[in-house]
Amino acid sequence: MDALLYWVGLVAVAVNALTGVLDAGRKQMDLIGALLVGVATALGGGTIRDLLLDRNVFWVVDQTYLIVALSAGLITFFAVRNRPLPPRLFLIPDAIGLALFTIVGTQIALQWHAPWLVASLMGVITGVVGGVLRDILCNDVPLVFLKGELYATAAWAGALSLIVLQEIGLSAIASAWVGMAIVLLLRLLAMRYHLTLPTLNPPKP
Amino acid sequence: MDALLYWVGLVAVAVNALTGVLDAGRKQMDLIGALLVGVATALGGGTIRDLLLDRNVFWVVDQTYLIVALSAGLITFFAVRNRPLPPRLFLIPDAIGLALFTIVGTQIALQWHAPWLVASLMGVITGVVGGVLRDILCNDVPLVFLKGELYATAAWAGALSLIVLQEIGLSAIASAWVGMAIVLLLRLLAMRYHLTLPTLNPPKP
Amino acid sequence: MDALLYWVGLVAVAVNALTGVLDAGRKQMDLIGALLVGVATALGGGTIRDLLLDRNVFWVVDQTYLIVALSAGLITFFAVRNRPLPPRLFLIPDAIGLALFTIVGTQIALQWHAPWLVASLMGVITGVVGGVLRDILCNDVPLVFLKGELYATAAWAGALSLIVLQEIGLSAIASAWVGMAIVLLLRLLAMRYHLTLPTLNPPKP
Repeated sequence: MDALLYWVGLVAVAVNALTGVLDAGRKQMDLIGALLVGVATALGGGTIRDLLLDRNVFWVVDQTYLIVALSAGLITFFAVRNRPLPPRLFLIPDAIGLALFTIVGTQIALQWHAPWLVASLMGVITGVVGGVLRDILCNDVPLVFLKGELYATAAWAGALSLIVLQEIGLSAIASAWVGMAIVLLLRLLAMRYHLTLPTLNPPKP
Repeated sequence: MDALLYWVGLVAVAVNALTGVLDAGRKQMDLIGALLVGVATALGGGTIRDLLLDRNVFWVVDQTYLIVALSAGLITFFAVRNRPLPPRLFLIPDAIGLALFTIVGTQIALQWHAPWLVASLMGVITGVVGGVLRDILCNDVPLVFLKGELYATAAWAGALSLIVLQEIGLSAIASAWVGMAIVLLLRLLAMRYHLTLPTLNPPKP
Repeated sequence: MDALLYWVGLVAVAVNALTGVLDAGRKQMDLIGALLVGVATALGGGTIRDLLLDRNVFWVVDQTYLIVALSAGLITFFAVRNRPLPPRLFLIPDAIGLALFTIVGTQIALQWHAPWLVASLMGVITGVVGGVLRDILCNDVPLVFLKGELYATAAWAGALSLIVLQEIGLSAIASAWVGMAIVLLLRLLAMRYHLTLPTLNPPKP
């Protein structure tokens, strides 16, 4: 399980760095600015999780994460440079990063013996904070708060599924894969069909 | 004193969750979005305080706070749903939350043996950060920085009063009640009469 | 070296508090609002560094930093009150604060045995976060993300120089002064000549 968490974490870091650089590039940021946005997107969620749990921050003790984030960012920058890109291209890798980080974050919190409700929220935080940082730094409205996106909802549903499945006896690894699939599926369906939850007040006519 | 701090803390969490959901609801956020804004408003200030003091984050070690914040948010959501509400309704509970959190935060920092000036700032941070997060997430200008609101000023005055009163020999509990009253009174008077402090430059003619 | 770090740190805190109050004053904030922005600008970068490295937060364990930040903010407030000021006046002290904080942050991270790439990023974070907080609180676009400013780039170049110079045998103190000079020079040249790095896409015609 620890090896799976490590490799899934590295993939999630690379995917999120890619979305950060794509988004920053659309805003005419320069190379270093785009790289920093990529690094913040890749490492932001896990950093907040580690601070809240009072763990060592994952990328401070293991430089590999930082090197992967910078490399993925650099490769993205030069691969897509001077090519016109569809503006919503980064939404698919963003959904993959959301699914991977949510499950990694929940699992790490469980292993750290956080209470279950706290662990599910740590999963949501690990999943969404990187993207929120990216959107704030790029001056977009954070995806997590847009109606009809089920962003945090998909993450929370996946995190809770992981916890329930482990509780009823499924193996940690199988639960992790099911949880990731739930996050990804819900998020993609929400993007495709604009699924919505109830709101506090009816829209003004 | 510890029991008082615990219960006042729970009330402050519930009150701040309510203000977060009310504000998020005005912005057409959906159920999960409004709940997350409520949770951030309720837990944000104390979280920053605990990170700065290197304490265990209060809601990570005791799940009760998170359950209270989610419950208060859910009840608020369904209680006010589909009812037209005056836009500034949340300012009174917001002032109550500011007073409670400021005093709890200052007292916790003092018990943690923080120097007095640091302790007073921890009170201000505990009091205002939740509301600042709420306003940023809801894309409002943070109340704390509006002129004629005495938001941080009221919190700082109450935190310093608490410290001075304890220093001159008043009991911790009596000092706490007086400090809360000072924050609440100053904040309500400032809202009512638009009290102001000096600014750096005169307004342009 | 420790004494140098301490004094350079205090000067950097004072300079950054000054830039925060100047910027807040332009936005018609009142005395307490401007002081809080000054304190956040002065202490923000080092706070994030200490949290990431799991050190005690520097100004919580030594109240001197907070007193210096508040005093520098108060003096600035009353020194420039009611005088018309050129809007970009704070850019020179801002560049000095960037240089001082970047080198202090990198050196502290190295002494804490952070890996070299992490240490260089800690320098950048210590240098830029205070100014980013100031710009967000004052509702400006953060300088660090403006094109043709080489803000983070100057900091990163200086931090990496410090590390390389120490590695090839230069004394820590000499490396620190050279690193500071590199940050300051690059930043001032970038401001003067609008130096730029490559961007992801060509500007739209």
